Amino acid sequence: MTQFKFSKRVPADGTDAVGAILKAAADPQIISFAGGLPAPELFPVKEMKAAVDKVFATHGQEAMQYGAAKGVTALRELIQHHVKEKENVDAELDNVLVTTGSEQVLDLVGKAFVNPGDTVLVEQPTYLCALDVFKTYGANFAGVEMDEQGMKMDALEEALKSRPNTKLVYTVPNFQNPTGRTMALDRRQKLAELAAKYDVYVLEDNPYGEIRFAGQHVPAVKSFDKTGHVFYMSTFSKTLAPGFRLGWLVADADVVNKLTVLKQSADLHTDNLVQYAVAQFFADNDVDAHVREISDLYGKRKQLMADGIKQYFPAGVKYTDPEGGMFLWVEVPGVDDTVELFKECLKHNVAFVPGDPFFAGKPQPGAFRLNYSNAPEDKIKAGMKQLGEALQDAVAGK
Amino acid sequence: MTQFKFSKRVPADGTDAVGAILKAAADPQIISFAGGLPAPELFPVKEMKAAVDKVFATHGQEAMQYGAAKGVTALRELIQHHVKEKENVDAELDNVLVTTGSEQVLDLVGKAFVNPGDTVLVEQPTYLCALDVFKTYGANFAGVEMDEQGMKMDALEEALKSRPNTKLVYTVPNFQNPTGRTMALDRRQKLAELAAKYDVYVLEDNPYGEIRFAGQHVPAVKSFDKTGHVFYMSTFSKTLAPGFRLGWLVADADVVNKLTVLKQSADLHTDNLVQYAVAQFFADNDVDAHVREISDLYGKRKQLMADGIKQYFPAGVKYTDPEGGMFLWVEVPGVDDTVELFKECLKHNVAFVPGDPFFAGKPQPGAFRLNYSNAPEDKIKAGMKQLGEALQDAVAGK
Repeated sequence: MTQFKFSKRVPADGTDAVGAILKAAADPQIISFAGGLPAPELFPVKEMKAAVDKVFATHGQEAMQYGAAKGVTALRELIQHHVKEKENVDAELDNVLVTTGSEQVLDLVGKAFVNPGDTVLVEQPTYLCALDVFKTYGANFAGVEMDEQGMKMDALEEALKSRPNTKLVYTVPNFQNPTGRTMALDRRQKLAELAAKYDVYVLEDNPYGEIRFAGQHVPAVKSFDKTGHVFYMSTFSKTLAPGFRLGWLVADADVVNKLTVLKQSADLHTDNLVQYAVAQFFADNDVDAHVREISDLYGKRKQLMADGIKQYFPAGVKYTDPEGGMFLWVEVPGVDDTVELFKECLKHNVAFVPGDPFFAGKPQPGAFRLNYSNAPEDKIKAGMKQLGEALQDAVAGK
Repeated sequence: MTQFKFSKRVPADGTDAVGAILKAAADPQIISFAGGLPAPELFPVKEMKAAVDKVFATHGQEAMQYGAAKGVTALRELIQHHVKEKENVDAELDNVLVTTGSEQVLDLVGKAFVNPGDTVLVEQPTYLCALDVFKTYGANFAGVEMDEQGMKMDALEEALKSRPNTKLVYTVPNFQNPTGRTMALDRRQKLAELAAKYDVYVLEDNPYGEIRFAGQHVPAVKSFDKTGHVFYMSTFSKTLAPGFRLGWLVADADVVNKLTVLKQSADLHTDNLVQYAVAQFFADNDVDAHVREISDLYGKRKQLMADGIKQYFPAGVKYTDPEGGMFLWVEVPGVDDTVELFKECLKHNVAFVPGDPFFAGKPQPGAFRLNYSNAPEDKIKAGMKQLGEALQDAVAGK
């Protein structure tokens, strides 16, 4: 058998802990809160079919032909207006790049900015796929402490001072993955200021911001950016269709142009059909009403999950109370090994993602992520009872 | 203005020569043979709309939900059977990875195999985007001489001996971009043997193979591979719809698995809608007949172009006579600066891509690429006359 000589960028075998967890959780007997999928029953299948039909009727050849690396103009204009309306971000068309999912923004920003050995500062804990991406470009990481108001700005400034080779600060300011926390307004303003002061870039990742079911909207970090140091990214994955792989970047034109060159080398451009389709869908539908429907459902599911925690979990367990998004974060005191805890819970036919892979540095024992968007109400009720029993057993040392 | 600190991977400003050429050629007054687009009038718009409608009716939620990184199973099975039927390549499902266009195969193979300083051997000349991609991963290049039978195997073995840090041999064996040449059968067999002997990998890129309008099919290099050293890639871009960005890799399962991990970090997975749609399109349509229609049209256009060369070009001009694909290659003796020649031709309102960017090493002066797939017959006739006049002027030293 050929032993392939892979590059240094390829992760070693057996390091895909999350893959193994999701695989274990995929057993149909198990009630899984491990994934991060939207509720498919709310996908606007009929309306999207109508939009695609219209695209074939009006732009069939264009949708099937090679297109521009930056994306279909109609969709870029839509994004330009969308970020102004939703986030008070001023953008010209030159500031907008359409990407193959927001995952591709992570990849292109990593490729364009991270030299091997550069430091990337991340929330502690953070979105684990961002760690995976930046790692392939040779990043070093340092975690920045969070509280209920998001990343702590004094801790961030300390990190920036002590790590002069910092290139990037990565944040998910709204309903963060994995904690569900939202960054406070004054910290957003401060974050934009610190980026300019220390000449580092903020990558503001906002996939969940529109899915708010409580509290008040907080404007984007990018809306406070006066120097171009903040790069804003989002996606249609949580509001329309993750399967279409449509994300975007809003940044300084110089950054957009350089990332466009790298995007050409990555996949030439993003599928034109879904770009035209989403632009058409926005023209023909009340997308705000659709997003409210999603938010309402997720709000109900979040509440059911929080109720289950209160009813069934051992005393002393802490958990976040998100105002939107898809995840909440649980901390069980007295647990040393969260992966062992995960295995115990599997025996009770219920699953989550252990907190460890979300940490750039030392993980916090006993912490895990729960997803509430993808499970119907009866599964949440039953699953939280099972999870509570498993945790009671674990804490009792059984 | 912020001076952004890009990584070493980002190409310097002003190095996108081809971008500048295509931009100049986009002037509607100019008859352009510069691009590389399929004929859009043959896109099966109506049939693809029907396929997409069926997908929404039967798999709407799956098409809109997150999917598997390796691709939709129905499409992977289709590719598995397709490579067996068309290229006599034996593949299990584990050997098939769906990618966001075949461009993404180049990117993932570069990322997974090329350490900075590794050598990539390429045909002289070669597909210029492959050079761009491998460059971002720090590759060094060496060009291997070609003749009308494709890459010369004695020259390749010399290169393999003299460059022990060679990791990859990149080839487009059928109707090569830019020359239109096809590699002879015995050389394909030899190429697979040399890869195993020197423990290097062959990336066999076959976007054009099915578009044959003359001569006999030659089986893939991969069909001679006994050791897993050959990676085979292709795409639906030339037969169905480049705008959908659907390509694939067939390789050893170990390679597919590692590239899948990197693909997850690049874009999670490829758009599900077009994956389901293409699988449905194949189930409902006679794709072979559609591909014959494309081949017939391109054969006619190639002949018109060859006739124009004979009729209008200066004596002594050499050109290839491809049996398929989209390009032919012209060599004008006595020309020192092909980019100057390009500018002269622009003044005659006709455009091509100068040969220089297709060369890893020293370019061949006076060589350029002509595309015949994308221009209607009257444009080819008129354009070849104009091009002939421009070349006559240039050769006469006007």
